[in-house]
Amino acid sequence: MYLLHRVRLSMGTRSRSDETTEAIMHATYRALCEHGYPDTTISSIVAEFDKSKGLLYYHYEDKDDLLTDFLRYLLERFETKINEEMTGDPYETLVGLVDRILPEQLDDDQLRFRQAFFEIRSQAPHSTAYHDLIEQNDQLLQSELTNVIERGVESGQFRSVDPERTADFIHSVLIGTMERGATLDDRELYRRNRQHVLRYIDRHLLEESSATE
Amino acid sequence: MYLLHRVRLSMGTRSRSDETTEAIMHATYRALCEHGYPDTTISSIVAEFDKSKGLLYYHYEDKDDLLTDFLRYLLERFETKINEEMTGDPYETLVGLVDRILPEQLDDDQLRFRQAFFEIRSQAPHSTAYHDLIEQNDQLLQSELTNVIERGVESGQFRSVDPERTADFIHSVLIGTMERGATLDDRELYRRNRQHVLRYIDRHLLEESSATE
Repeated sequence: MYLLHRVRLSMGTRSRSDETTEAIMHATYRALCEHGYPDTTISSIVAEFDKSKGLLYYHYEDKDDLLTDFLRYLLERFETKINEEMTGDPYETLVGLVDRILPEQLDDDQLRFRQAFFEIRSQAPHSTAYHDLIEQNDQLLQSELTNVIERGVESGQFRSVDPERTADFIHSVLIGTMERGATLDDRELYRRNRQHVLRYIDRHLLEESSATE
Repeated sequence: MYLLHRVRLSMGTRSRSDETTEAIMHATYRALCEHGYPDTTISSIVAEFDKSKGLLYYHYEDKDDLLTDFLRYLLERFETKINEEMTGDPYETLVGLVDRILPEQLDDDQLRFRQAFFEIRSQAPHSTAYHDLIEQNDQLLQSELTNVIERGVESGQFRSVDPERTADFIHSVLIGTMERGATLDDRELYRRNRQHVLRYIDRHLLEESSATE
């Protein structure tokens, strides 16, 4: 929860309504889906913005300033969703996490947004702000994966694997699948690798008695 | 081999010596390590070039033209290396492939080059030339992983897994580890995930009698 608190605190210094924030973030999402990271400009975001243009220019000096806030906003939403979903049965929760990252169906906007996400990630070595937010994002996923595996091991539903190492391995295969699928516009790879990951979880984590195959 | 042939055929239309090609490619590598993809320009590559500047301007119209040739050059080298290494013992060959992609030690230039590589990969959705070369690169790795696993299954050294599905899973974990480690400048993650992948290969692929643990 401390991360969410920190995100809220850093969400811009000039006050604005939640509704304005939502509208700005939605316009940013649309612009990124449409143009990708290098060709997204403040003007292309303004073009997607259905409120006063001046409002957006008032809040942000440049594109990277706005995209940093956008990453914070996504991180906050991701954390809220994950906190809501993390209390159930460990196996179901783990499958739910895989489902969130590699959904069975992915529409054009979702795929294009993932492409923009990897473009932004690739900029982390050149920007401390991006680097820190990507790091928080990855740490959040890593710690949730570790927690759910830990809970499953403690309850006896999972084999006694090393939760952190196993989480790290699953984390890499999720990121690798997302990156490959987004880069090459390959939804079939998402579906194929989603099955591999679920099968790995069944075979490697589930105790024999609860294994589905 | 047909891929290598195609790469050679498409390596520029204006004739130049191998030595010049090597020098141009080396300068491109240096510029990418130093500036990353967005800030690499033809001038920044020229600054790393120790031959006549005009030579470089003569061969290339813009940065993406040059980077496309650079990707072709890397692909050709990757294919030559892989062809040399793919004939030995399946287990050793597979470990060798992991070693090539997640080496135990990674110097600063190697890490920076991987960062630039993921920046270029992220541009694939915006450029047919990048898309096709990244696709050829991934298909090459995918087919070599599949072949070596197939050989291991046929010789009885590996369990009778589905070679293509298993290759796809290992491929994703390798790309995911490379991406995470490069994006967050995290060499420790490379070392950790390298161990996970090797352990996965031992546990999941090796027949009980030949397993190392």
